Amino acid sequence: MVEIDLNAIRQGDRLALTRALTAVENDDPGSRSILKTLFPYAGKAHLVGVTGGTGTGKSTLVNQIAKSLRHNINDEKKPKIAIIAVDPTSPFTGGALLGDRIRMQDLAGDRGIFIRSMASREAIGGLAHKTAAFATILDGAGFDLILIETIGAGQAEVDIARLAHTVIVVEAPGLGDDIQAIKAGILEIADILVVNKADQPGAENTARALQVMLSMAQGDSGFQTAGKHMRKANPVTSKARQDEKPTWEPPVLLTIATEAKGIDELVTKIHRHHTYLKASGFWQAKEADRLQKDLEVLLQDALWHDWQKNLDQKVYENILADVLHRKCTPLDAVEALLKRS
Amino acid sequence: MVEIDLNAIRQGDRLALTRALTAVENDDPGSRSILKTLFPYAGKAHLVGVTGGTGTGKSTLVNQIAKSLRHNINDEKKPKIAIIAVDPTSPFTGGALLGDRIRMQDLAGDRGIFIRSMASREAIGGLAHKTAAFATILDGAGFDLILIETIGAGQAEVDIARLAHTVIVVEAPGLGDDIQAIKAGILEIADILVVNKADQPGAENTARALQVMLSMAQGDSGFQTAGKHMRKANPVTSKARQDEKPTWEPPVLLTIATEAKGIDELVTKIHRHHTYLKASGFWQAKEADRLQKDLEVLLQDALWHDWQKNLDQKVYENILADVLHRKCTPLDAVEALLKRS
Repeated sequence: MVEIDLNAIRQGDRLALTRALTAVENDDPGSRSILKTLFPYAGKAHLVGVTGGTGTGKSTLVNQIAKSLRHNINDEKKPKIAIIAVDPTSPFTGGALLGDRIRMQDLAGDRGIFIRSMASREAIGGLAHKTAAFATILDGAGFDLILIETIGAGQAEVDIARLAHTVIVVEAPGLGDDIQAIKAGILEIADILVVNKADQPGAENTARALQVMLSMAQGDSGFQTAGKHMRKANPVTSKARQDEKPTWEPPVLLTIATEAKGIDELVTKIHRHHTYLKASGFWQAKEADRLQKDLEVLLQDALWHDWQKNLDQKVYENILADVLHRKCTPLDAVEALLKRS
Repeated sequence: MVEIDLNAIRQGDRLALTRALTAVENDDPGSRSILKTLFPYAGKAHLVGVTGGTGTGKSTLVNQIAKSLRHNINDEKKPKIAIIAVDPTSPFTGGALLGDRIRMQDLAGDRGIFIRSMASREAIGGLAHKTAAFATILDGAGFDLILIETIGAGQAEVDIARLAHTVIVVEAPGLGDDIQAIKAGILEIADILVVNKADQPGAENTARALQVMLSMAQGDSGFQTAGKHMRKANPVTSKARQDEKPTWEPPVLLTIATEAKGIDELVTKIHRHHTYLKASGFWQAKEADRLQKDLEVLLQDALWHDWQKNLDQKVYENILADVLHRKCTPLDAVEALLKRS
């Protein structure tokens, strides 16, 4: 059982914080009470997801965002920044540790920035759950803005979109040569699009392609994603009702993270998106949506474990054998099992 | 309710097959009986997953594999090939349709190749479930080899590794410039590694980097993945016991798919992996593993739906409200709900 000093965490004690995160990462028996203790304090931080494929310079960009947030504001307003680096594709820690060391050097010395990486042998679902738990702890610990960096594509993008308030999708120039490179799907999760490495050839083309796809998606009145709020009002409707909620047009920005170019504009957009979410009511809607989903997932797990506890193992094994011999489909096996139990 | 002509499907009627797949894709009421009807006939096809990022030329490679399988074998032995193209990152169909049209032209006229793409607005989990259902139908319809093509990274890779018997991971040269480009994680799911576009600079370097990482992983005696069989015997053990099960060393191949170079060698490796799986017993182990997992997922869904049906909505809403106001953590809410229900 890990003893957690709540006061120390709330007062910015990094050792206590690191211990709490490690306890959650390792599923220590104490992790539940840690989350319970910090949960009431959470719900204030701005969670900013940064996703993108390999080679887009995503990590450098995240570092620059953190630096810019810290250095361009006068002392009393300086936000406390946390970075969670999630690598769902690497179950080995080697890569993450190397990345961490480079990153530590870059941001060393600023006590207002806390960095924690997460590379795990776990299934993606478990990783998403722990990322959310990390966010709760850091949020409860008083960090104002939490950058969650993850490798793009597939489930990782979906999970980050669910967790973060603001999703930044990072592209690199030249990827547009391939038909599939700029996926229409990213338009659905991106609040801000960044073409990084803008000094490389093709940056303008990539940005333009993204813009075109954005306006196409905007023209499509059916453009709406399950579980994600509708970002754009229907053009006809919004003309008719000018007193409607504010809308958000995902901007496409060019950056050169290695030279800190375009970062300040990006940070401005992050702040604007925060303002937009609060003004439109989507902030609260998203929080409610997420907490409800968390509750449902936990309920489903609990129901499954309870059911297994009361199960006649012999009956289960016989039915499973029928499925394995293709005498009975999995769906029919479910009916048989739920009638018997 | 869709009328499904089982005989027509088993005799290679494409219209009947397409109807069955569409019924499953749309969750038609008849889809359950379709799966039930074809399930006993399934379990024979070799499921080959092909995964890789954008720009690796994965689709062209899949086409060439299908062509090679069809053209290099005499008429009576020609295997029936199906291709399922899954795009988990694009909820829009535009891209997939364009890709389909290009692909159709390339493989047109060969009645022994059936192609079906799947781009969906669904969540990834649903997509994986439907891909598995598609595989069952095509398998039951008598296809000998089913190529499942998916966009790489994250959950899609995990899902494909779970479904397919043989996983081919496609890389392109030059991606190795980035620290994170060659993810250690792919070594865990790859049975065959392909560096496509081998006429581009850096192909040999990328192949060498993959080889080095493979031998490093091999040296690591703890190298084993949850849910995936151990592919390599411990070198010491296998010297001691020569009568052990056959082992598999994931080969790294160079291909130029656009010129059909290296494809025959790749196809040979696919066949060898099939032979290896059968000889080692991993084929059956994997099938059993997968069917059991399918059963569990369906059981979990059913338990959740049953529980919701018997739920006092008022009680649920009150507890949910406490969670949303951060008076109660989701975990404590679960305890409260399961005690009350």
